[in-house]
Amino acid sequence: MRVRNRPGAAELVAAHPEYIPNEPKKLKGHWQERFKNSNLIQIEIGTGKGQFIVGMAKAHPEINYIGIEMQLSVVSLALDKLIAEELPNLQLLHVDGSDLTDYFAENEVDQIYLNFSDPWPKKKHEKRRLTFKTFLAIDEEILKPNGEIHFKTDNQGLFEYSLSSFSKYGMVIEQVWLDLHQSDYQGNIMTEYEEKFSNKGQPIYRVEARFISKARD
Amino acid sequence: MRVRNRPGAAELVAAHPEYIPNEPKKLKGHWQERFKNSNLIQIEIGTGKGQFIVGMAKAHPEINYIGIEMQLSVVSLALDKLIAEELPNLQLLHVDGSDLTDYFAENEVDQIYLNFSDPWPKKKHEKRRLTFKTFLAIDEEILKPNGEIHFKTDNQGLFEYSLSSFSKYGMVIEQVWLDLHQSDYQGNIMTEYEEKFSNKGQPIYRVEARFISKARD
Repeated sequence: MRVRNRPGAAELVAAHPEYIPNEPKKLKGHWQERFKNSNLIQIEIGTGKGQFIVGMAKAHPEINYIGIEMQLSVVSLALDKLIAEELPNLQLLHVDGSDLTDYFAENEVDQIYLNFSDPWPKKKHEKRRLTFKTFLAIDEEILKPNGEIHFKTDNQGLFEYSLSSFSKYGMVIEQVWLDLHQSDYQGNIMTEYEEKFSNKGQPIYRVEARFISKARD
Repeated sequence: MRVRNRPGAAELVAAHPEYIPNEPKKLKGHWQERFKNSNLIQIEIGTGKGQFIVGMAKAHPEINYIGIEMQLSVVSLALDKLIAEELPNLQLLHVDGSDLTDYFAENEVDQIYLNFSDPWPKKKHEKRRLTFKTFLAIDEEILKPNGEIHFKTDNQGLFEYSLSSFSKYGMVIEQVWLDLHQSDYQGNIMTEYEEKFSNKGQPIYRVEARFISKARD
């Protein structure tokens, strides 16, 4: 997501360590302590301006959410929403999401949301897609056994690719929606981007894919 | 596929045992002898009026094809095409495709095509869909290890269902097309139905799904 540089974004973020921790690596393995409960933890990788994750946190107060966004101006806009809503079950992470094992311990995460990730349409950029196998390996590590990725996109090529990437990795495709907004799916919370593009009649694709239980010591 | 009863269909079929064997159960395990070569055998379940399987057989003379169709009037229309083309690498089967182990031995088939199968949209009819797990179990038995199903449909609900049914069965989704005719896929041969519906702008879905090698004695 591209937004203009926002004056004061750095200062805003620095002023709210209660919502955006300033030493996030120290929280690895300690997120439930941070939330002061033992509820499940779900994360969104690439949280953008935060409409989805704020909406989820409001709709599901019994679940802890963490929105991860690497762009400062963008995450500061999500922070605006979080400050306004004062949600105890939502945290933001202003970090590069490419190696989440720096921030989450093995099995620490219950579920991962990917929404409208960058499609990187050129074949030579396949490795940058968040549904490429190296990212799935990281997701698998931080997710609990049988954990799921819930993925939405309007990008046909990325969706085709991701279905087969999940499957080839050994994940199970639990359910697929080829036109989410025309389906009977309940409780969808739209991202800003989703709202804009679905209003143009563009179908929204969605998939729930599950890792198969890991054999561990 | 529904067609009107065709007068003379039974007589036509009976007159061409060289193309439609009249004791097909006896061919189980002996299809390569029937074709008089050791080429791979690919089958289409629900071959309809035969445009696809005749087109495939013409395009790939090095592969043996078998088109399976249970409706007499329909298969007689496919037979018309086969008689006209005189293809040595195509056979038709006028049988109910619901238990193909009556007609094919274990590992006898190289690949299975499903084209525009009946969607059976009601949940209570799930077991009748040709991508339901009981049919997949039969397909797996007659297919060689790592054999593939290549499935095309214009039906969104059936396609969504089938992706997850394949995956839950343990198959790998090798590749997905959400708009086949707008893609760079080469060598597509259209069924009669596909031609009609794609002309109306309806997207055609396609998937190649592979069984994972069976552990056998």
